[in-house]
Amino acid sequence: MDKVNLAAKFGLIEEYWSPRVVGELNGQMVKIARLKGEFIWHHHEAEDELFLVVKGRLVIQLRDLEVSLEAGELFIVPRGVEHRPVAPEEAHVLLFEPKGTLNTGNVRNERTIEEPPAVV
Amino acid sequence: MDKVNLAAKFGLIEEYWSPRVVGELNGQMVKIARLKGEFIWHHHEAEDELFLVVKGRLVIQLRDLEVSLEAGELFIVPRGVEHRPVAPEEAHVLLFEPKGTLNTGNVRNERTIEEPPAVV
Repeated sequence: MDKVNLAAKFGLIEEYWSPRVVGELNGQMVKIARLKGEFIWHHHEAEDELFLVVKGRLVIQLRDLEVSLEAGELFIVPRGVEHRPVAPEEAHVLLFEPKGTLNTGNVRNERTIEEPPAVV
Repeated sequence: MDKVNLAAKFGLIEEYWSPRVVGELNGQMVKIARLKGEFIWHHHEAEDELFLVVKGRLVIQLRDLEVSLEAGELFIVPRGVEHRPVAPEEAHVLLFEPKGTLNTGNVRNERTIEEPPAVV
């Protein structure tokens, strides 16, 4: 039962697009990630996914629109909805999603992280 | 599927200690609340509860310690653990907890809010 200082935890992450677990509750994971550049198109079959921008700007592309999130803004991508996160510059993002949610959703490739580690 | 600007939503809330729903995903609710002063001691029988401070400072008193959270810090109170949130000055807080979680947990009194409304 320790508190989590998000800025300190982001400071420990070196890689982009590599989610780290900072908390778990009710079968849900709280993850953080440093994002920069474009991710891949994917969807999550059975999981809704929340993105909260802590720093920078994150664009979430959907097939028919795109949502631009600044720090202090959040967006929930419902299950089944194809999306692609894009960070024009570096963004620090907090994610809420069920345990076991794969970062690349229905896609498995070199960007897939099977078991995101905790931030040390 | 709209994004949520937290500062704008906090600006619409007039009462303290009156959580408002800003999102729902995977059976979990995302709520925000303006807090000031002392709440009551309570626990949640079956729900873990996450507090993320967006602005100000929130003290979460537990029976054997207290946790002081500044903006950008989060804390998860595990189910069954008695706690009392205290905001020495006004704090803006985001909560993440299962649908149906009661703000006063095992206690029902005049501070209980049976069904937190959405922020308009």
